[in-house]
Amino acid sequence: MNVIEELRATVGAAHVLTEGDLSAWELDWRKRWRGKALAVVRPGSTAEVAAAVRACAAAGTAIVPQGGNTGLVGGGVPDDSGRQVLLSLQRLNRIRAVDAANLTLTAEAGCVLQTLQTAAAEQGLLLPLSLAAEGSCTIGGNLATNAGGTQVLRWGNTRELCLGLEVVTAAGEVWDGLSGLRKDNTGYDLRDLFIGSEGTLGIITAATIKLAPQPAATTTALAACATLQDCVALLGLARSRLGAGLTGFEVMNAFSLELVAKHFPALPRPLPGAPWTVLLEQSDTEGEQQARVRFEALLEAALEAGHVHDAAVAESLAQSRALWHLRESIPLAQAEEGLNIKHDISVPVSRIPAFVAQCDAALQRRWPGVRLVDFGHLGDGNLHYNVQAPAGADGARFMAEHEHAVNTVVFDCVAEHGGSFSAEHGIGSLKRGELALRKHPVALKLMRGIKAALDPQGLLNPGRVV
Amino acid sequence: MNVIEELRATVGAAHVLTEGDLSAWELDWRKRWRGKALAVVRPGSTAEVAAAVRACAAAGTAIVPQGGNTGLVGGGVPDDSGRQVLLSLQRLNRIRAVDAANLTLTAEAGCVLQTLQTAAAEQGLLLPLSLAAEGSCTIGGNLATNAGGTQVLRWGNTRELCLGLEVVTAAGEVWDGLSGLRKDNTGYDLRDLFIGSEGTLGIITAATIKLAPQPAATTTALAACATLQDCVALLGLARSRLGAGLTGFEVMNAFSLELVAKHFPALPRPLPGAPWTVLLEQSDTEGEQQARVRFEALLEAALEAGHVHDAAVAESLAQSRALWHLRESIPLAQAEEGLNIKHDISVPVSRIPAFVAQCDAALQRRWPGVRLVDFGHLGDGNLHYNVQAPAGADGARFMAEHEHAVNTVVFDCVAEHGGSFSAEHGIGSLKRGELALRKHPVALKLMRGIKAALDPQGLLNPGRVV
Repeated sequence: MNVIEELRATVGAAHVLTEGDLSAWELDWRKRWRGKALAVVRPGSTAEVAAAVRACAAAGTAIVPQGGNTGLVGGGVPDDSGRQVLLSLQRLNRIRAVDAANLTLTAEAGCVLQTLQTAAAEQGLLLPLSLAAEGSCTIGGNLATNAGGTQVLRWGNTRELCLGLEVVTAAGEVWDGLSGLRKDNTGYDLRDLFIGSEGTLGIITAATIKLAPQPAATTTALAACATLQDCVALLGLARSRLGAGLTGFEVMNAFSLELVAKHFPALPRPLPGAPWTVLLEQSDTEGEQQARVRFEALLEAALEAGHVHDAAVAESLAQSRALWHLRESIPLAQAEEGLNIKHDISVPVSRIPAFVAQCDAALQRRWPGVRLVDFGHLGDGNLHYNVQAPAGADGARFMAEHEHAVNTVVFDCVAEHGGSFSAEHGIGSLKRGELALRKHPVALKLMRGIKAALDPQGLLNPGRVV
Repeated sequence: MNVIEELRATVGAAHVLTEGDLSAWELDWRKRWRGKALAVVRPGSTAEVAAAVRACAAAGTAIVPQGGNTGLVGGGVPDDSGRQVLLSLQRLNRIRAVDAANLTLTAEAGCVLQTLQTAAAEQGLLLPLSLAAEGSCTIGGNLATNAGGTQVLRWGNTRELCLGLEVVTAAGEVWDGLSGLRKDNTGYDLRDLFIGSEGTLGIITAATIKLAPQPAATTTALAACATLQDCVALLGLARSRLGAGLTGFEVMNAFSLELVAKHFPALPRPLPGAPWTVLLEQSDTEGEQQARVRFEALLEAALEAGHVHDAAVAESLAQSRALWHLRESIPLAQAEEGLNIKHDISVPVSRIPAFVAQCDAALQRRWPGVRLVDFGHLGDGNLHYNVQAPAGADGARFMAEHEHAVNTVVFDCVAEHGGSFSAEHGIGSLKRGELALRKHPVALKLMRGIKAALDPQGLLNPGRVV
């Protein structure tokens, strides 16, 4: 039997696709990578995943695992050789358990994030992972890429939310490492090695995720700051006054909100003209009134200290949503304005002002008039520091001609400030060259050693990460 | 040159000890393991650690890294062969940086935990790791063992507090993975692989640790519960009402407080006769008055719901300390009562009542009259489930005759409830047999593969963990 026949015998012929339009799996959702799979295989259980991996291992066939296919770095689609099996986890979509007293949820890799959020909410609990793709991304993909999102300031990345994993190894064995334990010091931390390894060390088939009680109220406020240094000072003040109640701290430069105003003129402009606008989110265990009082006291102190020159607290849930909507409209406004060069970088929070000043200047020197769309999760030190062509220039042409050089300027500057060229999106195939170039050589050696130890045939998502 | 001459040339003759009383390094502090080192080597810098490791690697000499020598599982003292180099990190004791705006501290491995707590406090910040040995344990040891302690409920284990590491590999190379970043998805999670590996994969020489603003007030309360199920219900209520303000949740059974009353009669007995007593700690960003009001509302609701039948809120810092002092006196009272068999186990919080009922019954069946000192970090699912000989029996003899059988009963019961036989103390040499027996076989295979990849000569802390 050849490998396709083996796979059919393993997961059922109906779940081994080789013909017709397979672009749902072969093409990434932003349409930047199109591959050609030997077959799309859709196992229905962990045992079937293991059997499929054993069949591929016996045949020396490479496997590309895929969740919701919402990744941004080309880590989840096959190459164009027609020789890689695309292994979709989408049929592993059972919620195995919700344990309210232990604040945990155990679910299979193919569960859509939003489905899990809803299952938690039905028991009055919060699954504190939230990102733009939550309606279609899967928890397996979130774990494989250690996804970030908008709740990291309070709850950490996906890694910090995971207590245990079930994983199929490169040999097709099943490691049952599902765990509802907050403390377990029995050997090496295999869990965190698989999390963020983008399917190159093993295939995550299920996980136990931490939950939290739902907050009684969530409110937002906006603050206008003269400088990024003021934004950082406001962050410090907000952290010490609100503690863990501070669940969001997003920053937006003037140009990013000007783009929103230009392309979506119907949206409100609560604090027009501010060089920097901060969106704060507070979650409270007591109630909305309480939260608003605390926000007002914080912002008054920030005004007095001179960190802020204007501020507004949302007076209703609808107003809160409208403020978040402004923030979320920036990428859409950017797209309306034309193609642009996107980044997903992080530096220590304390170095953000110096980084932005230095990098803005370096870009302006080389490409006078270039426009910077600076916004992102300041509380995590994570900026989407995007570069738009000078006004009137052709965005597509600017990007084609200068993307690599712009990236080099930005990443060099990030490195000077002790930062990361991929804060939350991962490496995939897109940034593999960057990794080889920029990662500490000893780290690269350690990673390659681990890859060779755990996947000696090199069949798990080859060409990704290391 | 032989290896000792090499080491003298590397770190200076004054820092290579081979004669005199070396028991400060060769004997663990509880005096359960005494080894004999080839030499005690005390490098003064990361470069010297790396050079010492290269010298040992060239000679095929094993290395046992050691921090404050406060471990509980025999992981940090040499064996008695006289052929292992004891590598003490104590001279690497510089604080390299405190970055208040980024809420991080970077320190060398040999820094004593309390020194780092103080350095943070001097800037109004909190290093939220606290454990009994904090006056002499080192941050390197805390990281190597992924130490727990009393703040885990809010802040997680040492792992969750670490952003980056500097590590000397088995080849004597230095990986500079120090990082002040909250988001960095550039390759495999080497950091968490070294954390908790107990010196068997590399030698941690420095780390960047997360800080937090100091809370405005910390208060405690005691609650009397009829059953463990009531304690779990109270935990759920406290979590939803206090959110992240709940920073401690300790449980003590009646017998553990009876022992305290018997051996320390001068201590207060605030809620005498309760089958289970819960110590709650709350940290507040606003103030003490605020915190006390919130505690009172919580306990009133718990009384109404029938989870609690009596409660007391500390009215001053002195009272708060006295309540913690009660809890901390349990191990001392136990020691006064006689030798006992200690455990450090965890199960999911939701399964604690069933676990304790089943395990108590199994022990009573086999050793009628055996006395159980159940206390610990209920909020983390971590109990120090200690077994004291029946009243009147000789504790030492009971322990000598039954320790292994008692452990087997307890660990089997832990396993049935999805728990861990080592929640916070690690494996070392003490629990290596248990690990080989009880860990999932695929996990063991993965761990051994990683050990072979990262330490192919097997020279780093041999005979520990795997």
